[in-house]
Amino acid sequence: MNVDGRHFRTIWFQSEGLIQIIDQRLLPHEFRIENLYTVEEMATAILDMHVRGAGLIGAAAGYGMYLAALQAPDGNPGEFLRQAGARLAETRPTAVNLQWAVNRQLQSLAGITAKTRLVTQALETATEIADEDAAFCRRIGDHGMPLIAEISRRKDGRPVNILTHCNAGWLAFVDYGSATAPIYAAHDSGIPLHVWVDETRPRNQGASLTAWELGRHGVPHTVIADNTGGHLMQHGQVDLVMVGSDRTTRSGYVANKIGTYLKALAARDNNIPFYAALPSSTFDWEMRDGLREIPVEQRNADEVRYMHGLLNGKIEKVLLTPEASPAANYAFDVTPPRLVTGLITERGITPATEEDILNLYPEKRHAG
Amino acid sequence: MNVDGRHFRTIWFQSEGLIQIIDQRLLPHEFRIENLYTVEEMATAILDMHVRGAGLIGAAAGYGMYLAALQAPDGNPGEFLRQAGARLAETRPTAVNLQWAVNRQLQSLAGITAKTRLVTQALETATEIADEDAAFCRRIGDHGMPLIAEISRRKDGRPVNILTHCNAGWLAFVDYGSATAPIYAAHDSGIPLHVWVDETRPRNQGASLTAWELGRHGVPHTVIADNTGGHLMQHGQVDLVMVGSDRTTRSGYVANKIGTYLKALAARDNNIPFYAALPSSTFDWEMRDGLREIPVEQRNADEVRYMHGLLNGKIEKVLLTPEASPAANYAFDVTPPRLVTGLITERGITPATEEDILNLYPEKRHAG
Repeated sequence: MNVDGRHFRTIWFQSEGLIQIIDQRLLPHEFRIENLYTVEEMATAILDMHVRGAGLIGAAAGYGMYLAALQAPDGNPGEFLRQAGARLAETRPTAVNLQWAVNRQLQSLAGITAKTRLVTQALETATEIADEDAAFCRRIGDHGMPLIAEISRRKDGRPVNILTHCNAGWLAFVDYGSATAPIYAAHDSGIPLHVWVDETRPRNQGASLTAWELGRHGVPHTVIADNTGGHLMQHGQVDLVMVGSDRTTRSGYVANKIGTYLKALAARDNNIPFYAALPSSTFDWEMRDGLREIPVEQRNADEVRYMHGLLNGKIEKVLLTPEASPAANYAFDVTPPRLVTGLITERGITPATEEDILNLYPEKRHAG
Repeated sequence: MNVDGRHFRTIWFQSEGLIQIIDQRLLPHEFRIENLYTVEEMATAILDMHVRGAGLIGAAAGYGMYLAALQAPDGNPGEFLRQAGARLAETRPTAVNLQWAVNRQLQSLAGITAKTRLVTQALETATEIADEDAAFCRRIGDHGMPLIAEISRRKDGRPVNILTHCNAGWLAFVDYGSATAPIYAAHDSGIPLHVWVDETRPRNQGASLTAWELGRHGVPHTVIADNTGGHLMQHGQVDLVMVGSDRTTRSGYVANKIGTYLKALAARDNNIPFYAALPSSTFDWEMRDGLREIPVEQRNADEVRYMHGLLNGKIEKVLLTPEASPAANYAFDVTPPRLVTGLITERGITPATEEDILNLYPEKRHAG
């Protein structure tokens, strides 16, 4: 999407041997482009979260393998590529897209020994992975945009108010985002809208990333504390809730950033549609009951106890709680399908039931 | 309650002409007792929120009028006292208890001109106001404690997990608190319990005040992001939700810190009892439909955009959002009575219906 009028992806091939990324650690306070020349630099960028988000991590692994192909010994690249792939995969062991992208590259490069052909093929596959991610998100936007257009018609063109949680934006993918794709599509087509951005404690991805990307693309938005959405919904100030998903079961349970379930409850209590937008790679076809089956990661309690922000031009970390008070930091919660109006995927919108989901993905009917 | 084994109130008469308070602006990072010698110093302490919370503000106004009595001209104190009362009342114009305490003092001092009698009477009234506040909270504890004891029996003595939001603790009153009174009573009587403390963005009263007072009294607790409660409830980790109330209508609508409604929804969705604890001064007998009638204050957006915390021994303020992103800061939300299991008052526990509330407060039957 645009940053102050100029189009960017989150990762791109700049020139032979040079991949560029947006260093997301500095957002929203500084927009810095980082140069990556080696697979080791890419591994560090993934590990230390210069890049994050399922789609973007997959693309980063793809480009990382391209850099590895450049570094591999001519004539006998196999062992080097396998080690590079293992190094990339171990940086974020729970990221499904990471291992998937590495495997796709290893398969596409299998048997190629000549350096020139190896590098050409690696770049082609990396580009395919990135382009596919962008295309899937774009299609999510195409499918979701009419939901916003319909509300806009009902409101006679008064701005459509959309609430979102965390960052399911283009910064988490290669472009467009998942939850934001319909928003950008509607905005770019001239539909007046406004986004309520949950700050999304404890890591504040909403306040730092979603607010930044919406603002730089020119989308009207307002940052709110996570506590606020229920009140806004009670008072008719939210027309639609749109979130992403970290994992979705075949029966429509939506695991997403902690706090999503509370917004789904409030949306239901106030008859507001609640949609999760996700590329189908997010489906876990082997799970049904998300509440019982999806493991919820506990992260470092210091993410609750401390807060990062800008002070005198530097990013500093301040302590919020008593030094002696423990804190708990659950990363995700699971929203049951009864609270989900629909899932927006690259193939279209489906109700959150196993039967409907499988009608959209019939090839998965026997996977569960 | 106790601070590291020693009993404190939030405000107290120390010696003739000297009122002491806990300066709450520095909590949880520093426990500092402040000396107040004049009504002007008390007005500043209320205005700049060295003291806050409905019950404590009332007591502060009472003691402020005692300091005013000491300063008033002997023989003709009337005009000085009226001006002092007006000065105190204007510091927090929406705090009902403030005007109420000033009026009570002015009535108790009316017609007294001799300095010694004036001062004695003013101290007596101030002490009454503070003692009544503490006694009401203590009775809330007595009435609420059996709810916790009953759950403890059902759990065979395994710790009762209670979730609370914001600070409805002893720091908001003179002692005991409202939502915390049953918790302290149960803890002090040896019932094993543990409190989930919502950090309560944007002002973080949970992380800074509730966590501090529970910790210093020795109550096991864990600070969580406001997003977390729903997940905990889905997984059986919350037995009871207990919150305070800033205003309660005669038909049982509960206005409380923004985010309370979301926790009430999650409690209902998971069959967990949800109680609001409040002294009856919190009832607004003239209102019924809290969603339509209770005005919700919007505070400064910078409370969302910035966060205060401790850095290198100093309290600093860091920026969380993009500089250009607007934010909105709604202070309260309103929980409808259908989500409230009961109200715990100084007279007992009542369902949140007009009929039941009026059975407990029959003298208010014709006030609405």
